[in-house]
Amino acid sequence: MARQADTSDTRRIERAAGRVPTLAEAFAADPGRSARFSFAHGHMWVDFSMQHLTDELLSALVDLARAVGVEEKRDAMLRGDTVNVTEGRKVLHTALRSGDSTEEARLAAAQTKRAAELAERLRADPGVRAVVNIGIGGSDLGPVMAHRALRAHRDGPECRFVSNIDPADLDDALRGLDPTTTVFVVASKTFTTQETMHNAERAREWVRSVLGDAWATRFVATTAEPARAAQWGVPADQCLEFWDWVGGRFSLASVIGFPVMMAVGPARFAELLAGMRSMDTHFAATPLATNIPVLHALVAWVNTTVFSRPTCAVVPYSHDLARLPAYLQQLVMESNGKSVGIDGHEVMHQTSPVIWGDAGTNGQHAFFQLLHQGTRVVPVDFIGVREPTGSDGAAHDMLVVNMIAQAAALALGRPHAEEPHRVFPGNRPSTTILLDDLSPRSLGEIIAMYEHSTAVQGWLFGINSFDQFGVELGKELATALLPEVQGGQPGPGTSATRAAVHRYRSR
Amino acid sequence: MARQADTSDTRRIERAAGRVPTLAEAFAADPGRSARFSFAHGHMWVDFSMQHLTDELLSALVDLARAVGVEEKRDAMLRGDTVNVTEGRKVLHTALRSGDSTEEARLAAAQTKRAAELAERLRADPGVRAVVNIGIGGSDLGPVMAHRALRAHRDGPECRFVSNIDPADLDDALRGLDPTTTVFVVASKTFTTQETMHNAERAREWVRSVLGDAWATRFVATTAEPARAAQWGVPADQCLEFWDWVGGRFSLASVIGFPVMMAVGPARFAELLAGMRSMDTHFAATPLATNIPVLHALVAWVNTTVFSRPTCAVVPYSHDLARLPAYLQQLVMESNGKSVGIDGHEVMHQTSPVIWGDAGTNGQHAFFQLLHQGTRVVPVDFIGVREPTGSDGAAHDMLVVNMIAQAAALALGRPHAEEPHRVFPGNRPSTTILLDDLSPRSLGEIIAMYEHSTAVQGWLFGINSFDQFGVELGKELATALLPEVQGGQPGPGTSATRAAVHRYRSR
Repeated sequence: MARQADTSDTRRIERAAGRVPTLAEAFAADPGRSARFSFAHGHMWVDFSMQHLTDELLSALVDLARAVGVEEKRDAMLRGDTVNVTEGRKVLHTALRSGDSTEEARLAAAQTKRAAELAERLRADPGVRAVVNIGIGGSDLGPVMAHRALRAHRDGPECRFVSNIDPADLDDALRGLDPTTTVFVVASKTFTTQETMHNAERAREWVRSVLGDAWATRFVATTAEPARAAQWGVPADQCLEFWDWVGGRFSLASVIGFPVMMAVGPARFAELLAGMRSMDTHFAATPLATNIPVLHALVAWVNTTVFSRPTCAVVPYSHDLARLPAYLQQLVMESNGKSVGIDGHEVMHQTSPVIWGDAGTNGQHAFFQLLHQGTRVVPVDFIGVREPTGSDGAAHDMLVVNMIAQAAALALGRPHAEEPHRVFPGNRPSTTILLDDLSPRSLGEIIAMYEHSTAVQGWLFGINSFDQFGVELGKELATALLPEVQGGQPGPGTSATRAAVHRYRSR
Repeated sequence: MARQADTSDTRRIERAAGRVPTLAEAFAADPGRSARFSFAHGHMWVDFSMQHLTDELLSALVDLARAVGVEEKRDAMLRGDTVNVTEGRKVLHTALRSGDSTEEARLAAAQTKRAAELAERLRADPGVRAVVNIGIGGSDLGPVMAHRALRAHRDGPECRFVSNIDPADLDDALRGLDPTTTVFVVASKTFTTQETMHNAERAREWVRSVLGDAWATRFVATTAEPARAAQWGVPADQCLEFWDWVGGRFSLASVIGFPVMMAVGPARFAELLAGMRSMDTHFAATPLATNIPVLHALVAWVNTTVFSRPTCAVVPYSHDLARLPAYLQQLVMESNGKSVGIDGHEVMHQTSPVIWGDAGTNGQHAFFQLLHQGTRVVPVDFIGVREPTGSDGAAHDMLVVNMIAQAAALALGRPHAEEPHRVFPGNRPSTTILLDDLSPRSLGEIIAMYEHSTAVQGWLFGINSFDQFGVELGKELATALLPEVQGGQPGPGTSATRAAVHRYRSR
């Protein structure tokens, strides 16, 4: 059965990797290089030719994917096997948009329909002027990212997002809003998330102080625990449900996307799901050697494991996609930032790189110095959009030409210069992703591409991408330390813990 | 004279580093550890005890700082020697707030006074409802960060920030604004920055279409080229000046801070400068062994160079400090992301780590999984604020206790657990910085701390932190490729460049 990459798989890859020419040599030797390493599906075109690939290496990588059972694992995930073995759960975010007749897909379609009806009602209500989503992590980053990405398609009430337990966050969000015309969406899979419930309680008091018991008319819940939400006071017909087979970081297509639906309307949200479904189908049915999420994952894996690149930058050349790097930080790093294999043994190689980045051209004026001339090689995912989302085509040309130029500058460099400080070593890898437009459908395609790439990377690393036990210890210690911070007995930790609590309390 | 770290310096450090115990061992052996490795100045308390330090290692690091001439280089910078040798410039951002009688300090004080008078006049004008700053990189990240950090102190017109050449950015910023009541600040050191000038021209047309020639009454320039700004049409008394001895990423204390002054008023801006000055004095006069920016830099250096940590996360537990990581990305990575020494020879060791991060507690629900259980060790700078900036003290307690708990969890881990997926290896280093409050003064202190740490890191790396030649090649290629994108002849690059341009143009 499927297994993780072992020495015999990687030896051939390392041999091939050792023979990879520089990017300048590779392009000089082969005018067809870009055509051979680029792939299109739907509204997306992806060019891997500026990565350190050869035909030999790519072929070895595809064989590795086959050897570790990527196809079987993919099929098992898609058909609803319990692939999240450490938590005993299915992983069926694809059922949220499949339209299939499986039980999960039918449940999901029914909730999407309920959400759409509620969204239509609230969008048509002239008494609803604003929506505030209260959620954190997977209940925040996806909706924030998609709401911003679909800026040009918004026709609903203003949406704001509150996540942090820092009271400044909710204070800031409520400024200028009217409790009688604001709808709150309390987004928490468990309906117990500390930050979210605390902020929800504050919001409830704010509305109750004006509306009294009618506060509940202004609250929606998106949760896997609708009974808890109802007990908290949200009317049952405003409790929208998802399930334990949807991971928080894979939940945008579920009712967690409700604020996006409020902003752009159910029809455009359905287009987002259609884009995701289109990429799901590509992922499910395309041979590994031309399967975009699989290739994207193989490039990430070889950069991480063979070429020892500890980070990967995501740089969307799009103001509206500026929140994509933060969204992918969670998706990739919470999924694959692990060091124990799915078999319970420590992995023998590196796993997830650090994912970071910001919008271009802004990044060019911030951290690109290090990309070009630093001692660390940072692979970059460049993401561009062909159709402008703004009102100035000339500026959009400048935007996109900057992206194309940066990829070329990183690849070729300027190895010879009269002055040593003006030398650019070049040979720095990147992937270019061009979307036809920033429509809901294109956005759905690229999100699903990254979801599937993340899963494939996890299979290559031999880990379970779908649990997140690493978030627990900090939470436990925070609970144990709260009495000390409030003036009680010392909790766990070190002399540094005692000192920090003392310093904090001595104000 | 001073030189960069060489083998004999680093051998002693490597020996000491090889004897560093785990953090759990170190705290168990020494109840006084936190007290010995923590330092206070002004409104800031910094605890390095959760870093991999021993007395022996710290002593060797301080000796290294002395051996490479950190004191002489600091003094040379502060007195105005031409320490930016590759560009032949002084590095005198400290003169922006020194109040000294040097020529630069007097010039700076005069411009700060002009800026304050202009800000007072515009803040008092009921016809001014909004300020839009148009700038990118150092003309954007500092003001954006400080404007957000001082949210609780704002009493001026609404401020918005436009940076990206993507037309969506300006479109978004102008939404809901009135050209007759909006003041634009065009912030560009050279007054030629492509993104900024294009956006400024669009803004000028937007105002001119309503106000005609009176558009100029609504424009302010912050620039080192006031003659160019005046030629562009900004009235001379609204052109505020800074100089080539202020690097863009070190320019917040200059007139680049004008939008912050508009938001919080000149008196609070003066407090910000006073906080910076206080840290400048500490940096200039404190022995290396207790000098906070020097110690911060030595920790960064040993993590990077000796312990081979390729990244450093900055996690402010403060909604209002959420833009600090992006600001520090530029400050640190544009300064020290270099591989050629100040002597013109390639450096033999790693230079700047990748700086990344996001606000806590949000990060806990996103990338902290990797920090706790990933295969990569990421040193963290935790930044907390003792006084709440929001309206809910209980929530602020929860915020800060989470920060303290995360540092303890990373340091101690949970090395033994019944289930391998619940093992936390621990021994992961962090620094805790606690500010007394998020006042302008405290903010000034921490910004200046990072400025000076960045400079010291550069001296330890043996590079020039004050140039940025790495941003040039991409700009040159973008200019050379623009005709092709607009339908003309092919420019430089590879088959991937041609393919991307073709794909872009074929819409």
